[in-house]
Order: sequence, then structure tokens, then C-alpha cells
Amino acid sequence: MTDDPQAPGEFGFIARHFAPLAGPEGLGLGDDAALFRPSAGMETVISADMMVEAVHFFPDDPPDLIARKLLRCNLSDLAAMGAVPRGYLLAIAKPDRLHDAWFSEFARGLATDQATFGLTLFGGDTTRSTGPLVLSLTILGDVPAGAALRRSGARPGDSVWASGTIGDAALGLLARQGKLPDPDGMLRDRYLLPHPRMGLGLAVRDIAHAAMDISDGLVQDAGHLARASNVRITIDADCVPSSAAARAAGGDWLETRLTGGDDYELLLTCPADRTDALLAAASASGTALTRIGAVEPGQGVVVLDQAGRGISFARPGWQHF
Amino acid sequence: MTDDPQAPGEFGFIARHFAPLAGPEGLGLGDDAALFRPSAGMETVISADMMVEAVHFFPDDPPDLIARKLLRCNLSDLAAMGAVPRGYLLAIAKPDRLHDAWFSEFARGLATDQATFGLTLFGGDTTRSTGPLVLSLTILGDVPAGAALRRSGARPGDSVWASGTIGDAALGLLARQGKLPDPDGMLRDRYLLPHPRMGLGLAVRDIAHAAMDISDGLVQDAGHLARASNVRITIDADCVPSSAAARAAGGDWLETRLTGGDDYELLLTCPADRTDALLAAASASGTALTRIGAVEPGQGVVVLDQAGRGISFARPGWQHF
Repeated sequence: MTDDPQAPGEFGFIARHFAPLAGPEGLGLGDDAALFRPSAGMETVISADMMVEAVHFFPDDPPDLIARKLLRCNLSDLAAMGAVPRGYLLAIAKPDRLHDAWFSEFARGLATDQATFGLTLFGGDTTRSTGPLVLSLTILGDVPAGAALRRSGARPGDSVWASGTIGDAALGLLARQGKLPDPDGMLRDRYLLPHPRMGLGLAVRDIAHAAMDISDGLVQDAGHLARASNVRITIDADCVPSSAAARAAGGDWLETRLTGGDDYELLLTCPADRTDALLAAASASGTALTRIGAVEPGQGVVVLDQAGRGISFARPGWQHF
Repeated sequence: MTDDPQAPGEFGFIARHFAPLAGPEGLGLGDDAALFRPSAGMETVISADMMVEAVHFFPDDPPDLIARKLLRCNLSDLAAMGAVPRGYLLAIAKPDRLHDAWFSEFARGLATDQATFGLTLFGGDTTRSTGPLVLSLTILGDVPAGAALRRSGARPGDSVWASGTIGDAALGLLARQGKLPDPDGMLRDRYLLPHPRMGLGLAVRDIAHAAMDISDGLVQDAGHLARASNVRITIDADCVPSSAAARAAGGDWLETRLTGGDDYELLLTCPADRTDALLAAASASGTALTRIGAVEPGQGVVVLDQAGRGISFARPGWQHF
């Protein structure tokens, strides 16, 4: 590593685009590794997410939004555990066809969201790809020792809640593909730039029984939570919050909304006697929170229509392969 | 995530190959993130390395060796800081053409080296690649707070040392490409499977002034250390330790040996009054350590021949792009 932005190859590339993003833990991106210390009494929450060109984003998506989506997908995992973000490592497999102008925009997106979410770059790796651009981000956050929200804490009698609105990003992907009208671009924006619920995760950490982020489709993700907690989750389809833009897209999209990916909302369960505290916490964090179902003894996920009849879907959510 | 190895898609894939590798920090690979706590008084050392098919390894290299090299490249970064490995996160972009048999071997390699080096899988991500297999590993280790070895500690008057032998892996790559005879396969083995110097890194942590791992070519990496410490490093070419197999390859390969990548040996500097302690520590860790040069006031790296004349090379080391 060098701090000369004019240096050839990867060293100048890192100096130009990434050294300005590094925090003190990154040691100037000039050592073999980063040094990280959790704050006193805290433990470290760590998650990794990889995004592949033409799989997770379109080659002509704006580079700054690709960067911010990558960071925000990982931030959403921290939110789900009730953690405060600290920093991240970023590995990039870079095709030769992508040049400085692209990565300058990409780094600008990272800088924007570093400021928004209060974290810095700790380190990473840059290398060459013979195929698509591949981005791999590992995020680190702090949570008081033993206090992390888990998927395994749901208990029969809990209510089930979802933040924000569900399905906009899946509809936004269809809009991005020209398969759905999206006059004001609101759905597409939700696909391009998720809004991780950091404040909500923190606010409900000592109230919710279980939490996870909804990233691969509500029904599939609820299934993961049900399984981890060894319970059954029933969801009232009509209660699942939808945006005005999603409603304008019509009722035929129910399956897309409930099984589509990229929401990055939070799914929570809450004991009956803590409902008021949950709603107060959500309100204090400025996040809409909607009751969408209940936790029961049993297994799996059941989605009910207005008449209380089960609805079945062709697939419960996004499969990465 | 599910623990059903028969489940379709990524969930069964993770259950079959990776869930058995997870440590307690990984929470069964079934939560949004891992939870990690450094041991008391320690801080966390973190590094990330990415390997791309047809860039860092051959498509027909044995999958278990690809896995072990990936892990060992990252372990070498911990060794350079004097850290003890704890765990890792692994992100995989998987081309459709690679099937279960391949990943079964790959996971077997990880299991082997997890046992050898004492670490476990904390988490990660699996997704689809439309191009090459891309592997991104983030490693975490423990070091006593404030005790990590750094590149920036070299001082004029220090001696410069290299572990093991230098250049075997670069020659092994040529042998792998059929450009060099390698009758007993020793050079190729050094290319395929590095030996990170964990014991040496720990043993010299309180003795050496500076350390880094030699991964992209001795001359280039020495330049990084010189720059981080604001000193000049002189290297006596004749002192750079070579293996019998490398010597059998002849003297024409000096440039390849001194500027080739993939050694994963350690480069150390040591104050004059600590030479005996350094050699005793190296001996106790069972690692060969050879004095190859000196630290002087100034900048950059100078490689000297037997007559004390400077040798120049076309390029100092491996450039990732």
C-alpha cells in the first residue's frame, strides 16, 4: 500500500478511492490487518454479504447506489441484532472494463452512507475479476454482551410485526425491468436503496422476543424465524403493510410482495404484555411498525386471507441458487 | 437457513457443507450475524482476502487445496500481526457448473485446516456467479491489546529477516504451468499450499520491531514495510534463503524468486541487541529464520549482489491489476 494516488495499479487505486474512507482501525489500509476493539461491555456482531453484477444489481445501476445498497444490506443485519455499526471490510473483484470514474462514484456512495450510519472502512482486498464485478462486504458492530436480538426467541402468544412496507423492492425490480408502471419511480427507488432500520433495532432490543431482517421474502424469512424458534407463525395477508405505490400496482401482486426480496425491513415478535412498549419504541425511532400475525405452537408459516383460509405460494422467497 | 441437508438450493448447500464447520460464534449459521467476543485484554485482528478462479488458482486445482490456500493466506496476515486465529466468515459466488462433489472436497479442506490452526466458521454468504468462482474470506484473531506487530516499527540499525525460503511458490507457479522442471513436485506444492508462520509471529511479537507477510513479492513487500516505517531497506540477494528445489532450478530465476508472489513467509526487522532473542524465539517455534539485510535511514528498497552493486528488477512484485 502507498498513499500516492498517482501510483500505478491497485496501490494507487486504493489510495485514490478507499484510503480516504478508512477509520483508525484500518491503520491507513497499510498493514496486514485491521485492529478492532469492542467498546467496554460490548460484543462484536459480524456479518458478510456478497453482491454480484447481473445477479444482485444491473451493470448500469448508478455506482454510488450499488455501494450504498451493499453497505445497507449489511447494516440491516446489524439492525436485526440490535447492534450499532462500527466498520466494515470490503473485497472487490474488479473487471478491467470498470475504470476510475466508476469507482470514484462508488466510493462517493460509501462516503455518504459512512456519514449517515456512523461507520468507517477497516480494510479489505482488491483484485481482478475475469467476469462480473463481485463485491464482498463484512460489517462489524457493537451490542451489549448477551443483549443481541436473535431469531430463536419467538414464543407462542407473541404477536408478529413488520416495519415499514413490504414488497416495494420486489415490485421495484419489476419496474426496473419495465414490467410494471412506476410513474413516480418510488418502487424502483426502494429496490435501489434500502433503508435499514437501525433505530428500530436498537429501540426494541430489550422488548422484542425475536427479530430478523426481511431480505429474501417475508414468507421465507418468517419460515427461518419460525424454525429457529420452533414455533408456527401465522400471517394475515391483509395486514401486511403496503405502500401507496404498491397498492396502485394492484392486488395481483400479493405473491410478489409477500415472497419477493430486498425489503430490508425488520420482522419482530413481541410478548402480549409488551405491545405498548413496542409501539412506543417504534414511534420513538420514527419507524412504522404493523402487526401482521401471531406466533403459535407448531411449525412453519401459514398465510391467511381475509376469510381465514390459507394461501399457498409457488415459492416462499428468493433463492440465491 | 435450515439444518436439512436435503433442502433445495442454498439452504441445503449450507447445511451440507458449511454448518458442520461453524463454531459457537456462528450461531448455527442461522441468524443475521455472528457474535464474537475477544478474550479478556485482547483486541481483534481482522483481515480479508479474495481469491478469483483463473486469477489466483487454476480451475482444476484440487478443491481442498484451494480452500486451504484461501484460509492460509488469511492466516498469514494474522501471523504477521502476532495474532492467534479465532474464526472466519466466508462468502462464495458459485458458478452453476460447480456441484456438490466439488464443494464437499472444498469443505473437507476447510475442516482440515480448521483443526490444524484452531479456528471455526463464524458466518458468510453464498450466492450465484455468472462468471468465475469467487471466494472472499474475512478472518478474525486475538492479540493482546496494543501488542500487534506492525509494518511501521522498523528503525535504522535493525536487521532484516525472512522466514523459511523465498521464491518457491513463484517457481511452483511456473512449474504448474509446465515452464519449469519440478521432478518431485516440491515447488508446485509450495504454490498450492502455503505454510503460514503462526508460531513465529507469536514467538517474535515482543522482540521484532516490525513485521509483515511476504505475499506479493519480497522486493515489493519490503518496499511497503520501508514506506510504512519511513526507512530504507537493503537486501543482500545472496542471503535470501532458497530451497534446494529452487536452487536446482538455477540462478536465472533470481528475479522471479525475489519478486514473485505467494510465499506467505514473514519479513521481520529486529534491533541489534535482540538478535539472540529473535533467533531463540524462531528456534523455539521451529521456523527457519535468515538474516537478509539491514534497515538504514532513507527510503525505498535496494537489492545488492555479491559485489555490493544494486540489482534492478523490471517490476518489484505482483500487481493485482
